[in-house]
Parts: sequence; C-alpha cells; structure tokens
Amino acid sequence: MKIIIINGPNLNLLGQRQPEIYGYESFEDYLVRLRTMFGDIQLTYFQSNIEGEIINKIHDWSKNCDGIILNAGGYSHTSVAIHDAIKAISTPVVEVHLSNIFAREEFRHHSLTGAACIGSISGFGLKSYELALQFFVQKED
Amino acid sequence: MKIIIINGPNLNLLGQRQPEIYGYESFEDYLVRLRTMFGDIQLTYFQSNIEGEIINKIHDWSKNCDGIILNAGGYSHTSVAIHDAIKAISTPVVEVHLSNIFAREEFRHHSLTGAACIGSISGFGLKSYELALQFFVQKED
Amino acid sequence: MKIIIINGPNLNLLGQRQPEIYGYESFEDYLVRLRTMFGDIQLTYFQSNIEGEIINKIHDWSKNCDGIILNAGGYSHTSVAIHDAIKAISTPVVEVHLSNIFAREEFRHHSLTGAACIGSISGFGLKSYELALQFFVQKED
Amino acid sequence: MKIIIINGPNLNLLGQRQPEIYGYESFEDYLVRLRTMFGDIQLTYFQSNIEGEIINKIHDWSKNCDGIILNAGGYSHTSVAIHDAIKAISTPVVEVHLSNIFAREEFRHHSLTGAACIGSISGFGLKSYELALQFFVQKED
Amino acid sequence: MKIIIINGPNLNLLGQRQPEIYGYESFEDYLVRLRTMFGDIQLTYFQSNIEGEIINKIHDWSKNCDGIILNAGGYSHTSVAIHDAIKAISTPVVEVHLSNIFAREEFRHHSLTGAACIGSISGFGLKSYELALQFFVQKED
Amino acid sequence: MKIIIINGPNLNLLGQRQPEIYGYESFEDYLVRLRTMFGDIQLTYFQSNIEGEIINKIHDWSKNCDGIILNAGGYSHTSVAIHDAIKAISTPVVEVHLSNIFAREEFRHHSLTGAACIGSISGFGLKSYELALQFFVQKED
Amino acid sequence: MKIIIINGPNLNLLGQRQPEIYGYESFEDYLVRLRTMFGDIQLTYFQSNIEGEIINKIHDWSKNCDGIILNAGGYSHTSVAIHDAIKAISTPVVEVHLSNIFAREEFRHHSLTGAACIGSISGFGLKSYELALQFFVQKED
Amino acid sequence: MKIIIINGPNLNLLGQRQPEIYGYESFEDYLVRLRTMFGDIQLTYFQSNIEGEIINKIHDWSKNCDGIILNAGGYSHTSVAIHDAIKAISTPVVEVHLSNIFAREEFRHHSLTGAACIGSISGFGLKSYELALQFFVQKED
Amino acid sequence: MKIIIINGPNLNLLGQRQPEIYGYESFEDYLVRLRTMFGDIQLTYFQSNIEGEIINKIHDWSKNCDGIILNAGGYSHTSVAIHDAIKAISTPVVEVHLSNIFAREEFRHHSLTGAACIGSISGFGLKSYELALQFFVQKED
Amino acid sequence: MKIIIINGPNLNLLGQRQPEIYGYESFEDYLVRLRTMFGDIQLTYFQSNIEGEIINKIHDWSKNCDGIILNAGGYSHTSVAIHDAIKAISTPVVEVHLSNIFAREEFRHHSLTGAACIGSISGFGLKSYELALQFFVQKED
Amino acid sequence: MKIIIINGPNLNLLGQRQPEIYGYESFEDYLVRLRTMFGDIQLTYFQSNIEGEIINKIHDWSKNCDGIILNAGGYSHTSVAIHDAIKAISTPVVEVHLSNIFAREEFRHHSLTGAACIGSISGFGLKSYELALQFFVQKED
Amino acid sequence: MKIIIINGPNLNLLGQRQPEIYGYESFEDYLVRLRTMFGDIQLTYFQSNIEGEIINKIHDWSKNCDGIILNAGGYSHTSVAIHDAIKAISTPVVEVHLSNIFAREEFRHHSLTGAACIGSISGFGLKSYELALQFFVQKED
Repeated sequence: MKIIIINGPNLNLLGQRQPEIYGYESFEDYLVRLRTMFGDIQLTYFQSNIEGEIINKIHDWSKNCDGIILNAGGYSHTSVAIHDAIKAISTPVVEVHLSNIFAREEFRHHSLTGAACIGSISGFGLKSYELALQFFVQKED
Repeated sequence: MKIIIINGPNLNLLGQRQPEIYGYESFEDYLVRLRTMFGDIQLTYFQSNIEGEIINKIHDWSKNCDGIILNAGGYSHTSVAIHDAIKAISTPVVEVHLSNIFAREEFRHHSLTGAACIGSISGFGLKSYELALQFFVQKED
Repeated sequence: MKIIIINGPNLNLLGQRQPEIYGYESFEDYLVRLRTMFGDIQLTYFQSNIEGEIINKIHDWSKNCDGIILNAGGYSHTSVAIHDAIKAISTPVVEVHLSNIFAREEFRHHSLTGAACIGSISGFGLKSYELALQFFVQKED
Repeated sequence: MKIIIINGPNLNLLGQRQPEIYGYESFEDYLVRLRTMFGDIQLTYFQSNIEGEIINKIHDWSKNCDGIILNAGGYSHTSVAIHDAIKAISTPVVEVHLSNIFAREEFRHHSLTGAACIGSISGFGLKSYELALQFFVQKED
Repeated sequence: MKIIIINGPNLNLLGQRQPEIYGYESFEDYLVRLRTMFGDIQLTYFQSNIEGEIINKIHDWSKNCDGIILNAGGYSHTSVAIHDAIKAISTPVVEVHLSNIFAREEFRHHSLTGAACIGSISGFGLKSYELALQFFVQKED
Repeated sequence: MKIIIINGPNLNLLGQRQPEIYGYESFEDYLVRLRTMFGDIQLTYFQSNIEGEIINKIHDWSKNCDGIILNAGGYSHTSVAIHDAIKAISTPVVEVHLSNIFAREEFRHHSLTGAACIGSISGFGLKSYELALQFFVQKED
Repeated sequence: MKIIIINGPNLNLLGQRQPEIYGYESFEDYLVRLRTMFGDIQLTYFQSNIEGEIINKIHDWSKNCDGIILNAGGYSHTSVAIHDAIKAISTPVVEVHLSNIFAREEFRHHSLTGAACIGSISGFGLKSYELALQFFVQKED
Repeated sequence: MKIIIINGPNLNLLGQRQPEIYGYESFEDYLVRLRTMFGDIQLTYFQSNIEGEIINKIHDWSKNCDGIILNAGGYSHTSVAIHDAIKAISTPVVEVHLSNIFAREEFRHHSLTGAACIGSISGFGLKSYELALQFFVQKED
Repeated sequence: MKIIIINGPNLNLLGQRQPEIYGYESFEDYLVRLRTMFGDIQLTYFQSNIEGEIINKIHDWSKNCDGIILNAGGYSHTSVAIHDAIKAISTPVVEVHLSNIFAREEFRHHSLTGAACIGSISGFGLKSYELALQFFVQKED
Repeated sequence: MKIIIINGPNLNLLGQRQPEIYGYESFEDYLVRLRTMFGDIQLTYFQSNIEGEIINKIHDWSKNCDGIILNAGGYSHTSVAIHDAIKAISTPVVEVHLSNIFAREEFRHHSLTGAACIGSISGFGLKSYELALQFFVQKED
Repeated sequence: MKIIIINGPNLNLLGQRQPEIYGYESFEDYLVRLRTMFGDIQLTYFQSNIEGEIINKIHDWSKNCDGIILNAGGYSHTSVAIHDAIKAISTPVVEVHLSNIFAREEFRHHSLTGAACIGSISGFGLKSYELALQFFVQKED
Repeated sequence: MKIIIINGPNLNLLGQRQPEIYGYESFEDYLVRLRTMFGDIQLTYFQSNIEGEIINKIHDWSKNCDGIILNAGGYSHTSVAIHDAIKAISTPVVEVHLSNIFAREEFRHHSLTGAACIGSISGFGLKSYELALQFFVQKED
C-alpha cells in the first residue's frame, strides 16, 4: 500500500519552532520513525508553503497511491481551491491537524478542506498522522 | 488500561437505522469485536439519549479510568453543559463522530464538546472508535 | 390506526399556567375529548420535560404506531438530537405548536425539529392537535 | 360559512409543474373535490402571481367572508406589504404551504406573512388546505 | 420563608473541581453554612445535570415556596425550555452564577434563563447565593 | 407648482383600518384638506398595492411634475426596484411614513427607497405629507 | 428557433435614463438591431415593472419557445417568486445584466433569480443580450 | 410656544466646514433667520460636542418647553444613553439630520436616538429644522 | 470601609421619571436610607451623564476607597472606554442595574462594562445597590 | 487581436475529472477547437494552480494583449490579491465560470475577482469561454 | 512646525497603571523626552477622558497647527462623532495606539477614528508617537 | 543591523500602476533612496505575488536578520498561513501598508497578518516603510 503525506504551510518548521511545545523532532525525523512503525506501507512525503503546489501534488499523485494524508495548515480554513482539488480526485484523503482546531481561534473552527475529505483527525500532535495511517491499514482489512 | 466509551443520542439505533448506510451491526455487537481487537484494554460502555446522564457518567467515571471516548451526537454542537463537564475533569477525553461533521449541514460544522477534548476524530464510521483507542494505546508507549 | 402524541417541556402545566390564555383544561382532560372526537384512533400519550426521554419514546414507539404528533416545546428551536431521532425513524411525524412560532421572539422563528418532520402546524391552540390527527385520518383515505 | 382561498405565485402551475411530485391535479380540479368534502362551506378562490393583487383581494374580500386561507408562495418569506395587509384586517387568516418550509433552503425557513396570521400549516401538500378548512369548521363548533 | 436553590450541570463537582479556583468546599457543606447565616429561611436544595429535571423541579416546587434561586450552569445560555418553565410559574426566580458571565467566552454573554427571571447576580462565587437570599429577605421587609 | 403623491400598499385602507390609531379620515378626504392648505400647489394622487405600478407612475409622471412625495409602505424596506426607479429620474422625491420606522420592528429600520430620495420624514402621521409639501414650497423660495 | 427576452423593472427607461452612461438607444431600437444580427432567431420581447407579470410571462411563454433571456433588474436580488417560476418550467433561461452586479452595492452581489437559471451574464451592457443569444445559437450546433 | 433646538457634535462648525457643500452660514446666523420665519415661537439653542451635556440639557429643559428639536449628529447611531434620556421625558422630541442618513455609510442607516423620538426628518439640509418647527406649529392648530 | 457609588446617565431623574414604575424616591433620598442601613460604611456618591466624567471619577477615587458600585446606565452596553478604566484600576468594582438587562432590547443584553467588573447584579430595582453593598460587607468577613 | 486565457486551480484536470459531467475533452483539446472557431484571434493560454502565478501572468501579459479571459476557479471567491491585480492593469478582463456560481454553495455566490472585471459569464460550461471571446470580437466592431 | 498630541480616555493613567507592562513613565514625563528628541517641533499636549472635549480640541486647534497625533483610546472603535470631527477639518491627523489593535479583542480590530485619518500606527508602545512625529518631519522634506 | 523588506502581491507594479496616485517611482528605485536614508542598515528586499513564497522567505531569513518589514498586500486580510508563519518565528515583524486600510472596503478593515506582528503602520504611502525602519533604529537605542 502506498500512502502520501502532504503537509502545508509552516509544517517545515517542526522541531525548530516552539520546540518546548511541538517537540525537537523535525517532520523528516518523524518520518523515519513512521516508516518503521508502518513497515508495510510505502510512504511518500511532500511539504510546501504554496497553496497551488499542494493542489499540484494532489493532482499528480492521486492516481499512483492508495490514500493521501493532508495537513493543509492555515489553508484548511480558507482554501476553496484545495477543497475543489480533493473533490476532483477519487483517491481517499484524510485530514490531520496537530492541534485541536475547535479549541483555537474562531477562524480555525471550520475546515473547508476537511469538508472534502473522508474524515478529519485533529488534536493529537504527530500522533494524528499515525491514526490516519491506522485508518488506511484497517481499511484494507 | 481502562477506557470508557460514552455514546450520545440516537447511537442506540445503530444497526437498525438506515443499515444500508450505517451497516447492520449494533454498537453492542461492534463492542464485542472491539474488545477482541484491543484485548489489553478494559472497555466500559454507556449510551444515553439524555444530555444530563452523559454529564453524570463523565463525572462518575472520570476518576476510575484512563480515558474517555465520547460521541455526543447532536449534543456536540449545542451543549455548553457537556463542554463544561469535560473541562471539569482531568481524564483525557477524545471526541469521535461516525460522519464527517464538516461535510454536513452548517449547524454541525463546529463542535462545542470537541473544543473541550484533547482531539477529535470524525468521518470514519465505526473505525473512528478504533482510531481513538489507538490513540490511547500509543499514548502509553 | 394508532397515533402517539408526545409533548415536550412545560406542556404538563396546561390548564394551570396562564389559564386565561391557555384555558382551564389540562392536556389529560383534553385527551379524553380528543379520544371521543377520533373514536377510531388509538391514542397514546407521553409527556416529558427531558429532551432525551422524548428521544427515547420516539425510538421505542416508532415501530408500533402509524404516526407521531410531536410538540417539542422549547426544544423545537435548539435540539439537533431530536431532529436526528426523527430522521432516524420511518414513522411519519407531524409537528404541532399551540402558539404561532413566527409571531413570537426571533429565537422561536425556525423549528429544527420541524425540519425533520413531514409538516408543521402552529398557532391553533389545542386545535393544532386535532388538525394533526385529521391529517393522519385523511392520509388513510 | 364563507371561506376564501388566495394562492400566490406559481400555484397556477399545479398539475403541470413536476406532476410526479405535485400530482396531475390542477388547483381548480382540486377545488371541485374540496367543495364536495366541505359541502357546508362556500368556497371562493383567487390566484395571482402579483403581490399587490393578493393585497387587493385581502382588502376587498376580508369584510365579506369568515376566513381566509393564504398560500403566498415565494412572497411568504419577503413581503412586508402582505404582512401589513393581514395585520390591517380583522378576518382570521390561516397560512398554508404545500411543502415543509423548515426543510428547504434557509431563505424559506421564516414566514413573514405567517407572522401576521393566526397560524400556519405547512408540508402536507394539498391536504394543508383541508386542514385549514377543518380549523374554520371546528372553530365554529 | 421557604426558598429553593436549584443548581444545574456540573455544580455537583464543587469542591473537587479546580479547588484552587473554586475552593475546597462542596455545595452541600456550603449549604450548612448558608442555613446558619439565614436561620429564618427554610432552604431546600436540588441539583441535577439533566435539563428536564430542573424544569420538573421548577414546576413541582414553585407552589410550595416563596422564591427560587437558580444557577442553570451551561443551560443558561441555550435553554428555551427552562426559560419557558420560569415564565410559566408565578414564584419569583433569581438567577445566580459563580463566575462573571460577561467576562467569559462570547457564547456565555447572554442568559436566556436570566431573561425570564426577576434579576441576575453573577461573578461573586458562592457569595452570589447569599446575595440572592438577601434579596428575598429584604423583599419581605 | 405640481406635486404628485404616490402611496404604496395598504394606504388605501386609511380611515377604515384601526381608526382609533390612524383616525377616521380616508386619504381621499385628507387630500381635500391638503389641497385647501396648499392652494397654490396642484396635487395629483395615486395609490397602488402593486410594486410595479408604483414604478410605472414614478416613470410616467416624473417629467410632468416638480416633485414626488412617496410613501412606499412595506415596499420601502425591500424594494431594490423602486430604489432604482427613483435613481433613474431627476425629479426630486421625498419619502414619508406615517409611523416612526426606527421605533418599529427591526426589519423596518432601514429604508431602501429612502436611500434613493432627497430626504425622509417619518413618524408624524398624516402631517408627514404636509411637512413634505412644506419642503417643496420652501424650496421654491 | 424562438427566443423570448423578458426585461424587468426600469429597463423601459433605456435610452432616456442617464444616456451618457447607458446610451441613447431605447431597448425597442436595440431590438431592431438585434433581430438583424440574429436573422434566424424569432425574437419576442416583453417588459414589465410588475414582478407578477414577469412570472405570468415566464409561465405563458415557456411552452412556446426554445429559450428565455431574463433581465429581472432589481427583482433579481430579492424575488423568491421569480426564482420559483424559473424552477417550475423546463425551458432554459439565461440571466443577463447590463452592469456588473459584483461591482455594485452589496445587496446586488447575489442573484436569486440567477440561481434558478442555466447561467448568468453580467456587465457587458446591451452586449450581454447578444452573448445570451450566442449561447442559444451555439447550443443548437 | 417655546421650542428648544439641541445640536450635537460637529454642528458648531457649520459655515466653516466644507462650505461649498453645507453653505457659508453658521447655525447662529441661521437661527436669526429662523426666528424671523417663526416669529411666534420662542427659540432657544444649545450645541455641545459632549454626549452627556446633551443629556443634561434634555433633562433640564424638558419641563420648560413645548418641544425639542434634536440633531444628535454622530451620537444618533450609537447612544443608548440619549435614547434613554428622550424616553425619560414627556416633552415631544423631533429628530433632524442635515443629510439623508439612509444614503450614507451603513453605520448611519439606523438612528437609535430617532427610535425614542416622535419622528425623524433627514436629508433636507438646514430646512430639516424648519420642517420640524412646522410640525410643532401645525400640532398646535 | 469606604464605598463609592457612581451612577451614569439618566439616573439623576430617579423619582421624577415614570414614578409609577421606578418609585417616587430620588437617589439622594434613597442614599439617606442606604447610609442608615449600612451604618458602618462610608458612602460617597457621584452621578454624571458624561461618559468621561465617570471615567475621571473611577480614576480619581479608586485609590481612596475599598470598592466601587457602578451603574453605567446606557453606557454599559457600548463603552470600551469605561471598560478600560475599570481594567486599569485595582479597586474592586461591582456593576448594578435597576432593570434586568437580559429581559430588555437585544442591544442591552451584553454589558461591556460588566465584563471588566468583579460581578454584576441586575433586575432588583434600588435593591441592586443594597446587594452590591452586602457583597462588600461580606467580603470583609 | 490577441486574447489571453488564464485558468486557475483544478482546471488542468478537465477531461479527466468527472468526465460524465464535464466531458472527455481536455482544455488543451478544446483550445484547438476554439482557435478554429475564432480564426482571427491569437489565443494564448496559461493555467496554474498557484494564486501568485496567476497574478504574475496578469501583470506580465496585460501590456501585450487586447483582453484577458480569467477563470480563477476557487480563488474567485477569496482572492483580494487577484482582485487587486486586475484593478492594477488597464487591459479589459472578462471572468468566466463553467458552473453557475449562484446555484452552488453559499461561499461561491459572490465573486471577488469578478468585482474587478468588466463582466462575468458563468454557467455555460466550456461555452462560457466562447461567449467571452464573442464579447471581445463584438467589442471591436 | 506645530504638532498637537491629543490623548483619549485612560491615557492619563500611564506610568501608574500596570507599570510592569506600560512602564513607569507618565505621558507628561515622556513628553519632556519627546520635546528633546524633536527639538524643532513645537509640541502641544491635551488629554481628556471626555469624548466631546476631544472633539472640541480637534475643532479649536486644527487651524493653528500643522498636524494632530490622536490616540482616541477606547473611543477609536465606537465614535462616529470623532470620525466626523476629523473629516470636518483639513489638518492632517495621524492615529496612534500603544498596543496592536489587531491582536486584541475583536471589538478593537477596526478603528472608526482611524478611518478618517491619513494613517494609523499601532503596537509600538510610546514609540508609536515618535513614528507619527517622524511622519510629520519627513512630510516637510 | 540587518532588516528585510518583504512585499506581497502587486507591489512589483509600483511606479507603473496608477502613477498619478502612487507616483512614478518603482520600489527598486525607492530602495536606493531608502538605503541612502538609512546608511547604517543593511537592507534586503524580496517581492513575490505567491503567498507561499512569502512564507518561505519569512522562514528562511528570519534567523539572519534583526527585523522584517512586511507588506502582504491583499493577503493581509485573508492569510491564516502567513499569520502562522509570523507567529512561528521570533524575529520582530512590522506590518506596513501604503494606503489606510480602515478607509477602504470593509474586507480590508482587519489585518490577519497584522495580528501576528509587533505593530502595524498604514496609510503613509512609501513613507510607511521609513517609519517602520525608524522603529527598528530607535528600538536599538
């Protein structure tokens, strides 16, 4: 099974940014651990701060994978364009967020990108990604 | 580890209500399977259609368990009282929803109960519960 | 034909509360008259001030009756949970209100429970119930 | 007893418009049946697509009848002028709708004309008119 | 003089929940002190997390007392049903809140239950109850 | 000087409708008095309950008069079309209202037709028309 | 091919009203040119300032034509009734506007009538009609 | 007859501020003319930029006059306090505005002070005051 | 103990304004009674209709007293400036209102000044002040 | 004449995405047909999923062409930046949409980019582009 | 060059109020430093907690100075009257705020007074005043 | 001291776009002058129309500079992602705008990016940049 993880804006800073909160591990390092945990899954990773590049990747990769895990960061709440991109493909997409979006500023309460996904997992830090992967693993069963 | 699952209004109908969509399995039957999947976890289950009874259970059981999985159903979007109950205890609570709340009517987009939880998992059908349990399992590691 | 009448919060006070407006007749007394008027219909009655008990009754009785007449009182305007309960059953439900909800405070203008019913009858005092029964009688013709 | 039925915009199309939903019967044909059902009531009928003509009829006929049944169609949700016309007369007016206005687009949830009526009956198709007539019949008892 | 205190959701946790903020005293213990302070008043106490039980008590006890002190907790901001219950009785009801509802989240700024009471006292911790009792005492003078 | 008075919906009922509030004088009778008061002004009068007929008159008469006094009644608050008609002509239009629109229901607070007029006079009963005429008289000086 | 053009309020003033902006050509004159441009199309024209007459024409003519071009003017933004009329017929309707409705006052940004049409063309002055006709011509190809 | 004119913020600048729009006449000079026009009326004038001083004057003078003409300027749209002051006295108050408040920014569309007055006259420049005085003169007749 | 009472706009009219509702007692007379009731408290009183003078007094007196009782009247709902003044001092401030602000017009439902106080007491008429004083007395115990 | 077509996010998927709805033709293939239809026009094409690249192209090409046809896709409803880019150039820009934006989700009802264009054409599928080209052709006549 | 600094409500407390945040320096002391920094500028200072006095000073001083620096404090967000005062004069006004208004409560996000100024500088503490002065200095160059 | 200036969408057009308003100087030319004015500061400049590239630069350069001056143009009002980027770094960021955002369309009144900055300077044209630089210079003192 091949799963693609797409991270949106500012997630490249993980490990550097407020490490006392988000931890000292970069997403790349975490990816190594993730690949170990899910040995049977072929994991591909892409990060971009550019909204349109995220759309490009969703388009390009959707035919060559079994699922997409998307953390669109700040674009989650405003991007009609990413919403449309997810709607345009048939590959299942799962939304993840590090923080609990319901518990933050009002402008983060709704997820426009989440509305186009199968489901949404938010608030579990990096473990949100693991739960999303679990979903794909269990889905196969 | 002891985890409590609390289901809110209408979830007692699972298996009978629109089975072509939600499946023919009742939550009680699913619980049997869930206990098999997570053999190490002691699972307790409670369902009520009464908002205040859900609050009662959150109060009563919070001291005797390691985590609560809460699907407050229709109360998720309006209940300040359940929100306050979750805030009042120190046990970690994870919110789950069968359907993707962002993809439904606008009055379901925000979760007031979710805002008081650690995190929220919605849209994966019954598998939402399994992902919530995975969170508690992994948290221990 | 078997029809169930479910009354929500504060309707137990009928006859005592502002009798100069609502009349001196309790709902129980009215029920006697109603049974006389509709001799061919088996009428069952339930009243509760508890939102979840209304949901319970909708669940429990929906299989053993031909129709439900629901006056959810103050819950009509806020209860996603009762809305979901009505959606979850296949028995036809007719909403009634004693007063004209469009003519009162703005927070009573919309009916969330009414949105899940076949139709809604409001403003005719106790006669709203008779009109709802007429609907079930005529429906059979 | 003399009752007037006033139908607003697009109700002249009944029987032709989406007959698989609304039936093959025109309102005129239905009126024949209605007169048979309510033999003791003298029924007068008026339909117009013009907001002001509806107001004219409400003014003109209000003194010569015992009640008005009004289905103001699309004007129900926006017409302050019809609202004022109903308020200006002392004849009781009952609002009817074929469809359940709470279950449709948000701009149909509130009824400005209904706010000026005695009560409102919506969602029962043509039977909404029969229930309105029942109200006038019972009112006399 | 007989006064009834009705506490809504989560107030049963007083003394246990965040005691560094709310103090180590349970409401039951406080009640003992309150009875001492107001020796001439017969104080009855009821707490429930269930919205409808609060309504039940308002109905049942309203005839046998001189006043009700109500802290409807989280239901204060959303409950049309409790609002209606207070409106339906003639016993004076005084609303109290431990915290200052104007200083908290926006969804707590307005009190729907308070709108049906004589007056509202919020922000003085447990002393809010004493001030409400003072009102009843002084009212008698 | 030639001035046209255009009255909108329900103003034909003046004198009959709630005469204890609005007086026993019809607008036609008032017009006789108005012509006496303003002997130098040629007054033309038109009333219609039909929005589009009001627009027609604004179009037709605007070239043959020195000013229009418009009481668009309930259309004042919703009619983009009358607003556009006033904007389309160069004749000065003065809006009048019998009642004080700021002191009534919220949906009457703003005047869309007034926004296209020179000015607005509301709340002085029939005297609102006299003040509007005074404006045209004084304007000439 | 037979196409009907229906113009709503104030469009009868074209050529007279602000000619420096809208030009000196009346719609009738323009119609002559339009018939020359589209020699193969039988063009019928109707204008009314009365909302209900527009609905009447949509009803009456919809069966005898291949398409309707509708410029509902100020009614576009508020008329649920015209919206319903368009929905009730099966003839394709194309909405046109002389001005760009997105670039004007906020109350013109949305088109309720446009929501019931195939599509909408706004901002091209009289050329908006030609583009609408082009659509019908090309549709046939 | 004694009438008081109270002008609110910025009206002291009349004659100096944008004289090409508002004219070169100060309110004091205009007052001389006004007194000539209305020889039988004793006119007293007060202007203040301070909200509370306007309230003071409304309180102080209300007993010694037959009417108040109030132009509360920018306070008209926000002052609950002046609204309450007008409500607290029994002297009739007429609101005037130089400009047409419906035709300006949205925050000027409603008048909170106007809601407490008998009526409101806006858009006629300085003539708004004359019309208000005409109202008091005619009222006496 | 030294407590300062600051009354805002229109409270100087107490006793004169609608005495059948508010009573025939002026605040000054009430103050005499209040000083008798609370003999141990040194009461200072200030009333102003001017928002900024209220701020001035809050600033000036906050250092020389043990508490402030503030009834900011109509400013309560709009004054960011008084809110900031209360936040800027460390003296405890208690808000009082004669009427129940939740039961009045929607623009009075929230209290911006109350949000900066310890707590708020509204709806008890002049007794609201006594309850506020009780709070300060009991606070000392 | 030289016209540039700029397509925004997800339009690169045309022909692949839901072909049963949008057809099997890619935009590139359509472009071939378009060039045949409009032989006299030099057509340049650009597509990007990146908001800023669309802005870049609007800047770069605006001086070297006679008109721009812009389908900004999901950015149409949210992009202040593209709105500003269109405002900053003098080349005429026509907005097109495949679907009727008024008939879709509420967040698509307004077009921020359309507000900066000459006009907008939506709902005609690929024919929207042809109509836009017709506009430029006719404009030259 | 002569510049006037006008400070609004609560800024007189600077140096005393939360000195750990705002510093121990009063505005008067700061003014001494400011005069040293900008030796060539004649600086006049006024502070008032009274909205109307701020308007008075804007009026009085606007003719005798080259620029005004205004920190209207809490009035910035609500005062239509100060907005109008700034609009009424031709002297350039620069708005300053100590704190970043975009980062505080939502009711502080917009500045109504700022909308009437040349520009706005917020968030730099006392340095906001220096930047405003720099603007006036550089403007002269 | 090293300061970075980041300009967002459309600012590359400066000098070409509406030069009668914005002047004939490009930002590059202005930068030369700016470097002369602030000889001691090492100024680096970046402009992009791509939201994500602005985020990239904020990330990349934040460690190698003493401050960032950001004019995010149209992204200021909608970009949660740039807001997050600013929050994620510890380098001080100052927001600048050429125009006064409070005085423009309502959708420009709030700055989401400004909410994450130290402060905001808007309305001074190119001088806004100089004031921002002054802030950094003075901050060092």
